[in-house]
Amino acid sequence: MTRLTLAIDAMGGDFGPCVTVPASLQALESNPHLHLLLVGDPDTITSLLAKADSAIRERLQIIAAESVIASDARPSQAIRASRGSSMRIALEQVKSGQAQACISAGNTGALMGLAKLLLKPLDGIDRPALMTVLPHQQHGKTVVLDLGANVDSDSAMLVQFAVMGAVMAEEILAIDRPRVALLNIGQEETKGLSSIREAAAVLRASPELNYIGYLEGNDLLTGKTDVLVCDGFVGNVTLKTMEGVVRMFLSLLKSQGEGKKKAWWLRLLGRWIQKRLAKKFGHLNPDQYNGACLLGLRGTVIKSHGAANQRAFTVAIQQAEQAVRRQVPERISARLQAVLPKSD
Amino acid sequence: MTRLTLAIDAMGGDFGPCVTVPASLQALESNPHLHLLLVGDPDTITSLLAKADSAIRERLQIIAAESVIASDARPSQAIRASRGSSMRIALEQVKSGQAQACISAGNTGALMGLAKLLLKPLDGIDRPALMTVLPHQQHGKTVVLDLGANVDSDSAMLVQFAVMGAVMAEEILAIDRPRVALLNIGQEETKGLSSIREAAAVLRASPELNYIGYLEGNDLLTGKTDVLVCDGFVGNVTLKTMEGVVRMFLSLLKSQGEGKKKAWWLRLLGRWIQKRLAKKFGHLNPDQYNGACLLGLRGTVIKSHGAANQRAFTVAIQQAEQAVRRQVPERISARLQAVLPKSD
Repeated sequence: MTRLTLAIDAMGGDFGPCVTVPASLQALESNPHLHLLLVGDPDTITSLLAKADSAIRERLQIIAAESVIASDARPSQAIRASRGSSMRIALEQVKSGQAQACISAGNTGALMGLAKLLLKPLDGIDRPALMTVLPHQQHGKTVVLDLGANVDSDSAMLVQFAVMGAVMAEEILAIDRPRVALLNIGQEETKGLSSIREAAAVLRASPELNYIGYLEGNDLLTGKTDVLVCDGFVGNVTLKTMEGVVRMFLSLLKSQGEGKKKAWWLRLLGRWIQKRLAKKFGHLNPDQYNGACLLGLRGTVIKSHGAANQRAFTVAIQQAEQAVRRQVPERISARLQAVLPKSD
Repeated sequence: MTRLTLAIDAMGGDFGPCVTVPASLQALESNPHLHLLLVGDPDTITSLLAKADSAIRERLQIIAAESVIASDARPSQAIRASRGSSMRIALEQVKSGQAQACISAGNTGALMGLAKLLLKPLDGIDRPALMTVLPHQQHGKTVVLDLGANVDSDSAMLVQFAVMGAVMAEEILAIDRPRVALLNIGQEETKGLSSIREAAAVLRASPELNYIGYLEGNDLLTGKTDVLVCDGFVGNVTLKTMEGVVRMFLSLLKSQGEGKKKAWWLRLLGRWIQKRLAKKFGHLNPDQYNGACLLGLRGTVIKSHGAANQRAFTVAIQQAEQAVRRQVPERISARLQAVLPKSD
């Protein structure tokens, strides 16, 4: 395995370096070939590295950044004022070839705009899309996109998302002829928004894709499709709804073994039950699959949840490692040429 | 308590009379003041009434209908060809005053179109909205709308939904100055679709409403708001996503006590755990809160899930009883006059 260098926007996210630095150390520990460029305020980052093992510390380099893009900044303004920010400098490492991918938990709109500006979309892609891989009930996985990069997606964009999703399912999940579905409010052809119906017509006429039709929200985790395509607004709300419900269940399960007035054996039993259930539902825990991949660019960019904890941010770094190993942008580019309609 | 008569589209839904007839009998059993008009094929309905208690049978009347609107029919075509269908005749019972409300598990688009045509929207309402009351984590409840009556909702419609939702929270949930939020993909003012931002501006400027801002999908069940407003496409996908995840969890919990090779005491323990958890999570079971209310009409119409089982359809009938008792259309109408901007 060869050397792998990733750039981390150390200042992004709700907790900034307090999460990104320990997560970086954890990622370095678990992969001896990994090198990280931590972009941000050198003093803060250095103070958080105090206890790091020196062998691990050697594979980590700090790159100074003067500013941070606020998570509630308007993307257009943030991009204009982005020079010197940790997010921009991290992306520039990818552009210049110093790093092979960038990971940020910062402002989604700014990340997507800056990534598009600096790394450029692939030929045939109008706008990049945020994709994630969700675990499903059958213990397989589903590629879902767009998760919020584009609040308004027309039919052409939905078709591009479908192509990129299918490539991801083939390359990352090793699924042959992955099933592709559009998220809609009914399974009948006449249902839903016109953009979805138009995209369906194009997908049905594309023998290169294994298009299976519409799926509804309740099929998100059932494993009925390998790729689920929707616009960014719906995808974002859907993903967050799912996460909210899963987290609520997990927290209710956790409280299962608690309570003051219980006998010791009931408390012990409670804890045993809790452990068993955690094992059973653990693969659905949102922290396990943090990290949405910004697809359609000439480079790899991973967006972590703003609220990611250390474990979740480590998972995002590992997603970046995997995306680089699998040469995701190169493979999408190659497939796009074959599938997308020629513009000339 | 006075006599209450409801019209049931006995043929609608995935299971038709096999669910609607037993559910009707169950509803009649639990409320001695209830009378039901079952609209559909007399032979099928009669055969399913064979074992019914005669005292209950007396409060039930069959109204013959020649046809059924298919659940996958295009609403516009279905409405044109609706004369003589069970759904239309059931709605006509409300229009003529024979019934005080109508319940159907049939084609949502057709139900909404026919209801609008026959019962007419209230003054100030462009299009009716589907509303439901969801249980949340704090064991309170949240009013959510629109759930799919309008796939594309402009800002004026979102404002109307907010007003109707607030009235419902006051009247049905007895909440004083209910909090009203818009579902969006971020909490910052600049986020989301322009229709949502425009609606937010109007709501912020309405002292009659207790508008609290944007909420995201993960807050659907947290109880941070009493009323959650979104367009019909997003609402439908969100609700179904939530239901899908909840059902998955409940089914995983159910399988908890199963397994062939287990010792008898483990199996017993498993069943005990299952019972405890079912109690803990039971209030989130989608079957418990079936029945979306079509708001904004001069009459009460309840849409049941197409896939509702007997228990769920009974809940929908009980929702109709409650809506009639609370005089929902009258109260919405009164409040609309005060809150909505005058058109002239």
